[in-house]
Amino acid sequence: MTTISKDTNLVTFINVFTVDAANQQQLVKLLTRVTDRFVRHAPGFISSALHRSVDGTKVTMYAQWRTIEDYETMRKNPAPLPYLQEALTIAKFEPGMYEVVETFVRAGGT
Amino acid sequence: MTTISKDTNLVTFINVFTVDAANQQQLVKLLTRVTDRFVRHAPGFISSALHRSVDGTKVTMYAQWRTIEDYETMRKNPAPLPYLQEALTIAKFEPGMYEVVETFVRAGGT
Repeated sequence: MTTISKDTNLVTFINVFTVDAANQQQLVKLLTRVTDRFVRHAPGFISSALHRSVDGTKVTMYAQWRTIEDYETMRKNPAPLPYLQEALTIAKFEPGMYEVVETFVRAGGT
Repeated sequence: MTTISKDTNLVTFINVFTVDAANQQQLVKLLTRVTDRFVRHAPGFISSALHRSVDGTKVTMYAQWRTIEDYETMRKNPAPLPYLQEALTIAKFEPGMYEVVETFVRAGGT
């Protein structure tokens, strides 16, 4: 489970992969494998959530890290690199590094 | 606070706005206002979280809805439309409709 709050001092990565619908499932498998085997073991990794678009053409990873430096250290690790390189043979990658501005809950709570 | 889990049967919208860094703060204000005044009052809205990119060029809304139909009904409401139209005068909009495949937590828990 991943929790989004503006009160935690984390850095958020929202990385959008664009893919042919025929390759979406393969991309999901690759990103699941690399996260499970490597990324979640890296120092400073907090949590992430993998999303597949309903239309089949996108896969988006929402990930929280303690610091930008922790993320960059993981990206320099050669072990997960082959997975990411394989992902880039079937997908385009649009990275984004964010901070949470605000969260909203439904009015009334019913 | 927003909670991401694959076990809730929600639809997730990850909408990425691309903007000149000079206009990022204005876009954040617009999206905050429309969400607070209108979107979070709509039937089926669960939760959302607004993110601003560290480099100033993106603003991303992560939003959870009960169903696609609830979201589409909100989008047809004329009240929030002027806010979204104003946003589109300063930003490009790349929508995405998703389901959560998997969430990951850090290994070891230290």
